[in-house]
Amino acid sequence: MIDDPQAPVGPFEPPYYVAVFTTVRTSEQSGYGETNARMEELVKQVPGYLGMDHAQTPGGLGITVGYFRDAEALAQWRTDAEHRAAQRRGRAEWYERYTLHVAKVERSTGFTRP
Amino acid sequence: MIDDPQAPVGPFEPPYYVAVFTTVRTSEQSGYGETNARMEELVKQVPGYLGMDHAQTPGGLGITVGYFRDAEALAQWRTDAEHRAAQRRGRAEWYERYTLHVAKVERSTGFTRP
Repeated sequence: MIDDPQAPVGPFEPPYYVAVFTTVRTSEQSGYGETNARMEELVKQVPGYLGMDHAQTPGGLGITVGYFRDAEALAQWRTDAEHRAAQRRGRAEWYERYTLHVAKVERSTGFTRP
Repeated sequence: MIDDPQAPVGPFEPPYYVAVFTTVRTSEQSGYGETNARMEELVKQVPGYLGMDHAQTPGGLGITVGYFRDAEALAQWRTDAEHRAAQRRGRAEWYERYTLHVAKVERSTGFTRP
């Protein structure tokens, strides 16, 4: 049903951190695709970055979940200068609403069809 | 861009729990829609249930995030008899792969376009 054999990512060995970013976008999406691709490239350079999942309901809610080994890795990503500029542009142009939940994973399980 | 003014849900006052459920489905989806609707109805009856976000990339990854006030609320949902039966059927029929991450939220923020 999906070509990417890596999706979804995980589970990873707890403890680790998740950043759950849920968004509703505006009709102004100029530049969004390029910036998003750049951010996906940039986050991979953060030591302690473990992976990411993304799902997008057409015309509806988008959910991006980033996984990080520890709070330090997540802090480095949050405060990255290029990422901060993208965050500002997101609030100015691309997002109607969003919520960010930052959480420490206590337990994780995975299933793959036998 | 989306009709539901409640989406995305949150932020809520930390601490609270998130269950991040990421799935790739099989081609066998008979009964999935009905069971999913029943689970959405059932989880609302769990004391301490705060809300849910869901996004689905067509033909790709699905992400459901459930929010709960505490570990007890989440445990009640996890062990609900009807929910457990649905979990078993999911592994037998509906899911190719999935990952579940259970985490305690330490920080959350929200944005709404002014």
